[in-house]
Amino acid sequence: MKKITSLFNIRYPIIQGGMVWASGWKLASAVSNAGGLGLIGAGSMRPENLEEHILKCKKATSKPFGVNVPLLYPEMDKIMKILIDQKISIVFTSAGNPSIWTSKLKNAGCIVVHVVSSVKFAIKAENAGVDAIVAEGFEAGGHNGREETTTMVLIPLIKEAINLPLISAGGIGSGKSMAAAICLGADGVQIGSRFVASIEASSHINFKKAIVSAGQGSTVLTLKELTPVRMMKNKFYEEILELYSKGSSSDVLYKHLGKGRAKKGMFEGDIDQGELEIGQVSSQINEIKPVSKIIVDIIKDFNEALFTISAYKL
Amino acid sequence: MKKITSLFNIRYPIIQGGMVWASGWKLASAVSNAGGLGLIGAGSMRPENLEEHILKCKKATSKPFGVNVPLLYPEMDKIMKILIDQKISIVFTSAGNPSIWTSKLKNAGCIVVHVVSSVKFAIKAENAGVDAIVAEGFEAGGHNGREETTTMVLIPLIKEAINLPLISAGGIGSGKSMAAAICLGADGVQIGSRFVASIEASSHINFKKAIVSAGQGSTVLTLKELTPVRMMKNKFYEEILELYSKGSSSDVLYKHLGKGRAKKGMFEGDIDQGELEIGQVSSQINEIKPVSKIIVDIIKDFNEALFTISAYKL
Repeated sequence: MKKITSLFNIRYPIIQGGMVWASGWKLASAVSNAGGLGLIGAGSMRPENLEEHILKCKKATSKPFGVNVPLLYPEMDKIMKILIDQKISIVFTSAGNPSIWTSKLKNAGCIVVHVVSSVKFAIKAENAGVDAIVAEGFEAGGHNGREETTTMVLIPLIKEAINLPLISAGGIGSGKSMAAAICLGADGVQIGSRFVASIEASSHINFKKAIVSAGQGSTVLTLKELTPVRMMKNKFYEEILELYSKGSSSDVLYKHLGKGRAKKGMFEGDIDQGELEIGQVSSQINEIKPVSKIIVDIIKDFNEALFTISAYKL
Repeated sequence: MKKITSLFNIRYPIIQGGMVWASGWKLASAVSNAGGLGLIGAGSMRPENLEEHILKCKKATSKPFGVNVPLLYPEMDKIMKILIDQKISIVFTSAGNPSIWTSKLKNAGCIVVHVVSSVKFAIKAENAGVDAIVAEGFEAGGHNGREETTTMVLIPLIKEAINLPLISAGGIGSGKSMAAAICLGADGVQIGSRFVASIEASSHINFKKAIVSAGQGSTVLTLKELTPVRMMKNKFYEEILELYSKGSSSDVLYKHLGKGRAKKGMFEGDIDQGELEIGQVSSQINEIKPVSKIIVDIIKDFNEALFTISAYKL
C-alpha cells in the first residue's frame, strides 16, 4: 500500500521535483531531512557542478536523496558516470527515451523513476524496466506534454495502464491536493512550485517573490511549436504573443527564445526578460517558507483532508 | 458537512451537468431517480421545448430536479417565466452575469447556483446572492474559461475565496475523481461527459460511440478568439487548424463555425462536421451505460477510494 515510502525508504510519500535553477544540494537535503525525498536537478548543472552538489548533499543529510536527469541534455555520459561513481541510489529521468539508460542505471544498483505526461510514454517506461512513474499534468510548471491532459484526468488513466508505483505531479502544493492525488490512484506526489518558493531553493529571490504574487491565470503553457513550457506571463511572454500575432515561424520563435532565458529569469532574477518556469499552483502560494515548515504544513493539511472525507462514506 | 445533499434534498452529492443536446427530461429524471440531482439543459431548447421537458420530467420523477440556463441565450424572459410558473425549485445559471436574474429567481423561491471558471466570477456570484457555486476546470467539455485553470488548482482557490457550498466540475467521471474533488475542498461534484455516454442522454448514438472511443488527447480547448470550447478533434477541428495556420481572423473563424454545429454533431450525429463538446474525461469512458449503473459504479468506486486513502494517515 505505502509503495512509495518503502521504495525510497522515506517517511512521507512526498518527492521534491528536480527543477532547473532551484534544486541544488540545499533544497534536496532539506527535503530529505524533513522526511520527503529531495532531488538534485541536474538539468541546469555542468557535470562538475553536479558532482559538487552531490558531495555537499551527502554531507548535509544522512537520508536518501536522488538526482533528476533530463535525458536530452548534453554530456549525458559524463553525468551518468558521476551518478554511478557516486553511488547515487535514486535517479529520476525525464525528457527523453528511458530505454537507453534505465538498464545501465539499474545494473549499477539504482532505483530508476521516469517522468511522463502520457499513457503512451508511461507504458514505454514500464517496458524499459523503470521502478516507478511520475505522471505530470498540464498544470505543472516547466516542460510539459502536448496532449494538455490535466492531473485529474491523467492519473486514473495511467494507473489503469501500468502496474508500477505511481507518483502524481502537477497542481500539487498542499495536503489537500496530495490527498486528491492519492484518491485518483497515485501512491505519492511530486511537488515542484511549492518548493521553489522555499528559503532553501537556489532560485533568485525576485523569482520567489513573483511566485508569491502570482494569481489565477498568471501562468500559461506556451511555445508549443518548440517544446511546450508552462511559465509566468511576463514581458518576455508578451513579446512571444506579439510574434504569434504576426504569424511568426518556429524559427523566429526559437531565435527570440535564444539561450539562457531560464537561467536569466529563475537564477539571475530578471523577472521581465527571463523564462520563469512555474506551475498553476503558484496561485495558491502566498509565502516563502523554510522546507521543514512546508512539509509540516502539507502533512497537517493532508490529515485534515482525510478527516473531512472520512465523513463522506456513501 | 453534507452541504450539497441537504441543499438539494438528494441522496448523493452528484449533480448531472445541464448540457446542450444531451440532458432532456429522460436524463435528468433518471439521475434524480438514482439519487443524484438531474438538470434539464435549457441551452439547446426553445421555451416551448423547455416547458415540455419540465412537464415530462415532473411525471418521470418525484425527486428534486433542476434546470440549467445559460444566461446569454436569447428569449431569457420567456425562459425565466416558465421556470417560475412551473415552480422549478433549483436553477443553475451559467455563461452570463448572475446579478440580473439571481434575486428574481430567489424571490420566486428558487435555489440558485452559478457556474464559474474563475475566482473573480465566483466572488461576483457570491455577491449576487447565489446559494452555491459550480467551479469548472480546464478539462471540462464545452465552453470554458480563458485562464485554463485545472480542477486540481481551481477548487482550492475558490474554496479559499468564498463561503458558499462548492461543487467541483471538470475531469470528474468516477468515484475516484469525486473523492479527489472532495479532498480539494468541494462539497459535491457536477458530472457531464460520463452522463452524455448514458442510455438516457438525448445525444446521438454516433456521438456516444465517439466518446467511448476517445483516448488521451482526443479533445482540445480551441476557438479561444471566439468563446473557448473543449471539443473532440474531428474533421471540423482540422479545418479550424488549417484556418489558424493561415493566420485567419476571428471573423473568418466565426463564419466557418457557422450556426448549428453543436446540434449537427451532438444531436444529429455528424461526427465529422459537428462541434462535439466533451471533456478530457471521455478518455476514461469505455461503455455506454444506463444512468442507474453509472451512479452505482461511481458510489462503489468512491467508497473504494475512501478505503484506500484511509490507510494513509501520516
